[in-house]
Amino acid sequence: MQYWLQIKLFRMHVAVLLFEDFETLDVFGPVEILGRLTDLYRIDFYSLHGGLSNNKHGVSVQTKKLADIDNAPGIFLIPGGYGTRVEVNNEVLIDCIRKIAEQSNYVFTVCTGTALLAKTGLLDGRKATSNKRAFDWVMTTGEKVNWIRQARWVVDGKYYTSSGVSAGMDMTLGFLNDIHGNVFAKEVASQIEFSWQQDKDHDEFYNPLPHPPSS
Amino acid sequence: MQYWLQIKLFRMHVAVLLFEDFETLDVFGPVEILGRLTDLYRIDFYSLHGGLSNNKHGVSVQTKKLADIDNAPGIFLIPGGYGTRVEVNNEVLIDCIRKIAEQSNYVFTVCTGTALLAKTGLLDGRKATSNKRAFDWVMTTGEKVNWIRQARWVVDGKYYTSSGVSAGMDMTLGFLNDIHGNVFAKEVASQIEFSWQQDKDHDEFYNPLPHPPSS
Repeated sequence: MQYWLQIKLFRMHVAVLLFEDFETLDVFGPVEILGRLTDLYRIDFYSLHGGLSNNKHGVSVQTKKLADIDNAPGIFLIPGGYGTRVEVNNEVLIDCIRKIAEQSNYVFTVCTGTALLAKTGLLDGRKATSNKRAFDWVMTTGEKVNWIRQARWVVDGKYYTSSGVSAGMDMTLGFLNDIHGNVFAKEVASQIEFSWQQDKDHDEFYNPLPHPPSS
Repeated sequence: MQYWLQIKLFRMHVAVLLFEDFETLDVFGPVEILGRLTDLYRIDFYSLHGGLSNNKHGVSVQTKKLADIDNAPGIFLIPGGYGTRVEVNNEVLIDCIRKIAEQSNYVFTVCTGTALLAKTGLLDGRKATSNKRAFDWVMTTGEKVNWIRQARWVVDGKYYTSSGVSAGMDMTLGFLNDIHGNVFAKEVASQIEFSWQQDKDHDEFYNPLPHPPSS
């Protein structure tokens, strides 16, 4: 009985934020990777009002109310998606995100999810990245952020921010690498037959042409 | 109005099968890729009894009843996951899968989802693949299938079967390549910043050592 309690106490709580029109893989890439480690991580889905969160891909996921998070999460995961264009102006949600992100051990953002976190001000003075195709818009949500355009993902303290959609998987494996070591992270990547791009600075989708360095 | 009707009529219906303890990315990798093409594909989730389908990753997805599929789907997607170990013995579900798969234009299986399709007999005499780590078990579900152990994905007629978990994304992009052309498929991969492994026969996770060719 004591052993059972010990195991449960050390499972890190992962709180996943959903909202209308979230990007499917931004959420379920990292959830696949952390969720399969059932001895180490416990995942719950939250939205501002609870209930079903839907997106344009036909996905409808059951969530709890964000206000009902009882303890500070180990990881707070903020996905992107077209819904972020609406939610950056949702002051109630942004206030909730700020409060939970402050209390969390780690905060992950994928794709345009970085815009929601940037809007809280918590990334001011920090390095962060986001989706390639929405980068200019995302930059407007946090003018004091040190935006890194060329990166698969960026780590600054407890904040892990990734490039677009699929990059969230590379980042999550990068987190496992940082916490549990390289052998462990590679084993998880192999279990899901995922070709992990291990170098967070290697960004094959970066295209410098539309944004030449100022001379 | 007529234009709107025309667009709707030509959207291909993608029916995604869920069951208790499905593998998260087996489902949501392909759903990300097809779901974002909202002018071309329309996705619905089904389970035997409808309602919420759950898995050990904490995911809980709203589904319709499998019996309520009104028309033959364009694509019927069957994911894997530990739940397949139970569901291969669920004769009611296997009968439903057989009926829907027969009527569908295309059938996709990801990972151990191939076991559920193999169990119907529809893969007898056809080439198919599955998850590396469960391959020996999957083979027992269809002894007349021509199992291809080394493949990222396999196409035999209307049946697309993939290796483990992440391979479902490469396969779905491969399908887009087959239907809409290479430029189109590469553009979708780029939109989601996914490093698409385009060669279905290139399988970096194949390890011949545990299975030496018989001499």
